[in-house]
Amino acid sequence: MNRLLADLRIVEFSAFVAAPLGGMTMAQFGAEVIRIDPIGGAIDFARWPVTKDGASLYWAGLNKAKHSVALALDKPEGRELAQAIATAPGPGGNPGGGGIVLTNLPPLPGLDYASLKAKRADVILLRLIGNRDGSAAVDYTVNAASGFPLVTGPGGAPVNHVLPAWDIAAGLYLATALLAAERHRARTGAGQEVVAALADVMLAMVGHLGYVGDVHFNGRARPAIGNDLYGSFGRDFATSDGRRVMIIALTPRQWRALGRATGLADKLAMVGTMMEVDLDTEAGRYEARDAIAALLARWCAGKSLAEIAAAFAGSGVLWGPFQDFVELVRDDPCCSAANPLFAEVEQPGIGRYPMPGLPFDFGAAPREPPRPAPRLGEHTDQVLAEVLGLPDAEIARLHDSGIIAGPNGK
Amino acid sequence: MNRLLADLRIVEFSAFVAAPLGGMTMAQFGAEVIRIDPIGGAIDFARWPVTKDGASLYWAGLNKAKHSVALALDKPEGRELAQAIATAPGPGGNPGGGGIVLTNLPPLPGLDYASLKAKRADVILLRLIGNRDGSAAVDYTVNAASGFPLVTGPGGAPVNHVLPAWDIAAGLYLATALLAAERHRARTGAGQEVVAALADVMLAMVGHLGYVGDVHFNGRARPAIGNDLYGSFGRDFATSDGRRVMIIALTPRQWRALGRATGLADKLAMVGTMMEVDLDTEAGRYEARDAIAALLARWCAGKSLAEIAAAFAGSGVLWGPFQDFVELVRDDPCCSAANPLFAEVEQPGIGRYPMPGLPFDFGAAPREPPRPAPRLGEHTDQVLAEVLGLPDAEIARLHDSGIIAGPNGK
Repeated sequence: MNRLLADLRIVEFSAFVAAPLGGMTMAQFGAEVIRIDPIGGAIDFARWPVTKDGASLYWAGLNKAKHSVALALDKPEGRELAQAIATAPGPGGNPGGGGIVLTNLPPLPGLDYASLKAKRADVILLRLIGNRDGSAAVDYTVNAASGFPLVTGPGGAPVNHVLPAWDIAAGLYLATALLAAERHRARTGAGQEVVAALADVMLAMVGHLGYVGDVHFNGRARPAIGNDLYGSFGRDFATSDGRRVMIIALTPRQWRALGRATGLADKLAMVGTMMEVDLDTEAGRYEARDAIAALLARWCAGKSLAEIAAAFAGSGVLWGPFQDFVELVRDDPCCSAANPLFAEVEQPGIGRYPMPGLPFDFGAAPREPPRPAPRLGEHTDQVLAEVLGLPDAEIARLHDSGIIAGPNGK
Repeated sequence: MNRLLADLRIVEFSAFVAAPLGGMTMAQFGAEVIRIDPIGGAIDFARWPVTKDGASLYWAGLNKAKHSVALALDKPEGRELAQAIATAPGPGGNPGGGGIVLTNLPPLPGLDYASLKAKRADVILLRLIGNRDGSAAVDYTVNAASGFPLVTGPGGAPVNHVLPAWDIAAGLYLATALLAAERHRARTGAGQEVVAALADVMLAMVGHLGYVGDVHFNGRARPAIGNDLYGSFGRDFATSDGRRVMIIALTPRQWRALGRATGLADKLAMVGTMMEVDLDTEAGRYEARDAIAALLARWCAGKSLAEIAAAFAGSGVLWGPFQDFVELVRDDPCCSAANPLFAEVEQPGIGRYPMPGLPFDFGAAPREPPRPAPRLGEHTDQVLAEVLGLPDAEIARLHDSGIIAGPNGK
């Protein structure tokens, strides 16, 4: 967390990963991010992983530092309140800080761009949709279409990624687009609607990484090659103590370091002669990868992870151990409050655990501890009072009539 | 492409994916992005995929719309020129538009933050490093440490992702951080150094998605479950014509649509009774996933992809076909100039092919066609003349003495 965007308010209507991550990124930059949910929560409110009590660790993780408002969005009066919050002046009553809306849900009546703009001419609405034609798409379907599952793993059958990589890219793209649109508004006074399709995020990346050109000019695509690095040398190896390590030689310097640190330089040179390739080139190392790997596999199999770590320490070899989530969380000090990225934070309804902030150190914006996710509806009354200026009696009436709910669900 | 950031200049010292993607994102928003490389190119200049002539489609893809300047960065005079470009006023001589530097390479003498700041007090330097302690890390090693490879695929052995997902996240985070830092400078006059570690980008995401909390509170992590969706229903199925489809029921609405569209509603209800779970809940569908999949697998195996597409059209079922890169590029109209995301663009040294722009439609900033990547050194003379104001004779001297190079490598 820092305070770089503390003068902004973003109102979020969202679920799952992409828009919540985009909004949370803004919240971790200090913006006042108000996530408005239906009473009882949106469809992601109980998403796994969950605690034994059913509290979603996923929801908590993706909504840190936000304000939560729960409204009866299925009723006109609830939607009117949502529209009023979305178009209100920003923090401290500064007009330029408000009127920014982020969503990855279908627009409700009154919350589409035309309606918001009628209420506030300079509103910025950022919408993530599935496919460009408006049809539904999620990370799983977009990934299936991307080509990547069919070159992940050994080939022959698709292997889905577990990291929701397209959602993550879309969420961070949305954060960038939001700041570009806000910058434009600050300079010109003009708001706008910004629409992105998750499928287009995928297609853009497939193009950026050269795969579209590869098929276009070469008539083929890279094959599935397991954990090998395409076009250079890199592979995973087993250690004597049942661990695995990733070893890479992407650059000539890394390649020479690998020969030195393993004592295999002479034998690796013989591989070059034997395979009739120049191992100082990436293409040469890729061509000879199985022969290189045969030498390295035997070297690794004779050593424990600790012995490999000692041999590679300070050597310039590019490598790293594989670890599972349990090893990462329990044993890796980088994944704890020993790393300034993390702080131990009390999450209401869940407990105290290490939470990550922004993965940046800003010289001019001191790092503040991460803030927990809100309880659903925690800030309903506060937002209605402070942002909309509603009197207590009106807030009580809205509770009584089921239009709004606080953290007790009432 | 649009022109939202046309008043900014970003100077990039970079290689591979993350910083080039961050810079290219700015370039596709219209910023003048000058990538400064050593004469002959950086270590990513020939990265695969390549054309038959060895031109890198990867480099072209990640450097679209940039300016390229080639300097002898191994010599003091070359680094002095780089420093002067990095600290010059922005486009049109506007001071506030310049002095933004983006890098994922170790800082060269004169190009570290202290040196840049001594030349221009309000400089913004964004640096992506590997690990927080300064040691090397790349997408492959960070991914090994993340826990994801050990739950990707069927389990038992790590499966690396092929998409460089951590680099993509880091690149887009850098774009966001750049705009936040530039916003701060525009308001306060203060520049700053911004440092991000690729490993921290990974750790932040592992935390955001709930995996740190899962281990912390539940003492375990999600298992490897192949292509199944964790905590709800989703899996891949084979069709009668040798294709595969991903079918998902994340929400109650999608679950009911799946029963209707397949005609299997009654049999799926029997699964709920048989497995003693409530299939209207995500946890119930996850618990009964193999039984659900048994019914769906037989249904899919009896139908071609076209028949499945017809059955699901307009049904509300969330699904999508798997396609490989060749099918994506050749057969999917979304991956062609039929999609406004793409345009056919002539890439010098490669040829004409569909290139993606920004995956956003901005209402107030018309979409312009993507621009190709530069030839290495294409803008050396132009930048030295226009940004530094060097006379022709001085530029000729710098060529003669090997301090600068144009697109012919001289």
